[in-house]
Amino acid sequence: MALVNEHLLKLPDNYLFTDLAKKVNTFKVTHPKADVINLGIGDVTRPIPQACLNAMHKALEDQAKAETFHGYGPEQGYSFLIDAILKHDYASRGISLEHSEIFINDGAKTDSGNFGDILRHDNSIGVTDPIYPAYIDSNVSCGRAGTLGEGYRWSNVIYMPCSPENNFIPPIPEQRVDIVYLCFPNNPTGTVLTKAELKKWVNYAIENDTLILFDAAYEAYIRQPDIPHSIYEIKGAKKVAIEFRSYSKTAGFTGIRCGYTVVPKEVTASTLMGERISLNKLWLKRQTTKFNGASYIAQRGAEAVYSPEGKEQVKAMIDYYMENASIMKKGLTSIGLRAYGGENAPYLWVKAPKGMTSWGFFDKLLYEAQVVSTPGIGFGPSGEGYIRLTAFGDRDRCKEGIQRICQNI
Amino acid sequence: MALVNEHLLKLPDNYLFTDLAKKVNTFKVTHPKADVINLGIGDVTRPIPQACLNAMHKALEDQAKAETFHGYGPEQGYSFLIDAILKHDYASRGISLEHSEIFINDGAKTDSGNFGDILRHDNSIGVTDPIYPAYIDSNVSCGRAGTLGEGYRWSNVIYMPCSPENNFIPPIPEQRVDIVYLCFPNNPTGTVLTKAELKKWVNYAIENDTLILFDAAYEAYIRQPDIPHSIYEIKGAKKVAIEFRSYSKTAGFTGIRCGYTVVPKEVTASTLMGERISLNKLWLKRQTTKFNGASYIAQRGAEAVYSPEGKEQVKAMIDYYMENASIMKKGLTSIGLRAYGGENAPYLWVKAPKGMTSWGFFDKLLYEAQVVSTPGIGFGPSGEGYIRLTAFGDRDRCKEGIQRICQNI
Repeated sequence: MALVNEHLLKLPDNYLFTDLAKKVNTFKVTHPKADVINLGIGDVTRPIPQACLNAMHKALEDQAKAETFHGYGPEQGYSFLIDAILKHDYASRGISLEHSEIFINDGAKTDSGNFGDILRHDNSIGVTDPIYPAYIDSNVSCGRAGTLGEGYRWSNVIYMPCSPENNFIPPIPEQRVDIVYLCFPNNPTGTVLTKAELKKWVNYAIENDTLILFDAAYEAYIRQPDIPHSIYEIKGAKKVAIEFRSYSKTAGFTGIRCGYTVVPKEVTASTLMGERISLNKLWLKRQTTKFNGASYIAQRGAEAVYSPEGKEQVKAMIDYYMENASIMKKGLTSIGLRAYGGENAPYLWVKAPKGMTSWGFFDKLLYEAQVVSTPGIGFGPSGEGYIRLTAFGDRDRCKEGIQRICQNI
Repeated sequence: MALVNEHLLKLPDNYLFTDLAKKVNTFKVTHPKADVINLGIGDVTRPIPQACLNAMHKALEDQAKAETFHGYGPEQGYSFLIDAILKHDYASRGISLEHSEIFINDGAKTDSGNFGDILRHDNSIGVTDPIYPAYIDSNVSCGRAGTLGEGYRWSNVIYMPCSPENNFIPPIPEQRVDIVYLCFPNNPTGTVLTKAELKKWVNYAIENDTLILFDAAYEAYIRQPDIPHSIYEIKGAKKVAIEFRSYSKTAGFTGIRCGYTVVPKEVTASTLMGERISLNKLWLKRQTTKFNGASYIAQRGAEAVYSPEGKEQVKAMIDYYMENASIMKKGLTSIGLRAYGGENAPYLWVKAPKGMTSWGFFDKLLYEAQVVSTPGIGFGPSGEGYIRLTAFGDRDRCKEGIQRICQNI
């Protein structure tokens, strides 16, 4: 008989967002006339930049004629997109990467999860706490996270608590860790690391032979000058870090599906016998075996992000969301709530008042202000006592939601 | 230090298609004036049906307005597409499946590879020989295939040789096998199983508690009435079989990326302690953890495959390819070559004359007829002495290629 991968059974059935949806549905059924405003949504809502749409319409026209038809593309992605990435995302910041170090994908969640395929199941992992849950869950499912203990902590995971006390800067662990996940600008806290702080992590990784998996999905939201957009702005990072990028939040591509992963050739990990293996080569093997490339249409759309019109339209969209964030933060602090983030990221991390729990504050916001938030506890133990709000909504709805919170909480 | 997954290192560096591309490039460089015809290509070349293109243009227009914008979709896929699949691909053949038994993906290669994530690494696997290489490679990369032995055979893989002697019907193995891969209509041989033959496999799986992974990517090419389009046409299959479907070869979606996997709720596998686990539930967990859904655009395109215009245009495209196959087969047999398949599938499996090897015949066709084929040995030990030709090319080029073979071989 076929045997199942029992590690997957360790994952709790009720995923944060499923629980949340159920609660919201219950509220809507029992309050059919309530006008619920969702400020918890982790998804963009603005239309896709016209430059990208035009490029995708054109790509579809290519598919209408045998002469310009595109079938299977290269598993690593089309050169037209890789070239644009190298030029606009990296060379423009003084970072030199090779063509074969970029791997186009159908979204950062896929690759950040699948990247574990090329690493042994028993590496120790370190994560910022709170953290985007899929990072841990993908490690649970291959056995790498160990077993679940008290307070929803996994035995083989080192948690690096981020809180106002340490300015949301993850403390460097005292023990060695094989693999560390860093996400900056951070989801869920909306906070960032300066170059000096990120440099400490790169140095730690070099000294301890640690692999950094760096999620830069929100880099386009950075406004301050000293915040690194890429980990490769830090000297030495090309030896120790993989970077995940996504067009989802940059250009509204959550429904289009395109992102990319940078795997520099210098990054290596070890066999049990101590031989160093290039992760670039290994990732290429994984991708050619289990992936058939990202959609031609999506890649043409992503390419247009870098056109002059695309850049302008992307900037306008991000300005819109960041203006939402600013309005929301102002409102929340005006009534004495402590809100973090929202200055270089579309997320606000809000402390629940009067020692309330995450779910307690969630319920209060839902029932008293008809506003949906995301309970911080869903992002890890250090998320208890917080909620996450996002700036991805419609301007008027954001204003209205915050006004209701101000009047009712 | 981070340790690598050493199983991936077992995969030979030179993938069949990479070797092949190198040989073709060498030929082109040394014969710059040669007009090379590719009859080996495993990719479609005809434009995408207009109904699908129209639907995708419309979907892009949805993305241009906040009111109709689609961000993250359900990981399992949109209901509009799942409903169309249930109605047109299954109910129409008397097969009743539930909505939650269909999982939309970005292509069958992804899912047939990733499905291994939910199964233990030490299940034994059985494969038809020859076979599409990615099936085995994805098992190698998680350690399930064992170690590589002589004649390119993996220690934990049971090979079921398919040849003219057994009419390309895979012999039921004498030992128990945990997981069996079946692909019919078959890539690379182009042969099919009748209902009676497939029934033997379903019965074997029920008796032996074997899981069948059934690849039906080419079902749209079936012309004869007694050939099953879905394994669920066989009684009992919903207890033991997963089915992979794809729009790649049905509607020319190799560059669009959309397919689906059927995981009936009745299919279970076991924990070490003997508890039966629903694979549907486990696959849902895997997908929600490591996948963010297929593109909205692609799903709208796939939905249009089932519209009256879509059906007509898909049929015309498949008729075109199958007419190619017929012309090719007639030509090859007219000069005494033995060619199999091509009647319910876009592939022809051609025996090399005079005891030549696959690569020997490949070279001969390339150098003497300037025709590219695919050496059968790339598909497994039983592929030695064969080449695969495909019917996916342009009509005139197919004719010309076959004519050259007839005149020169």
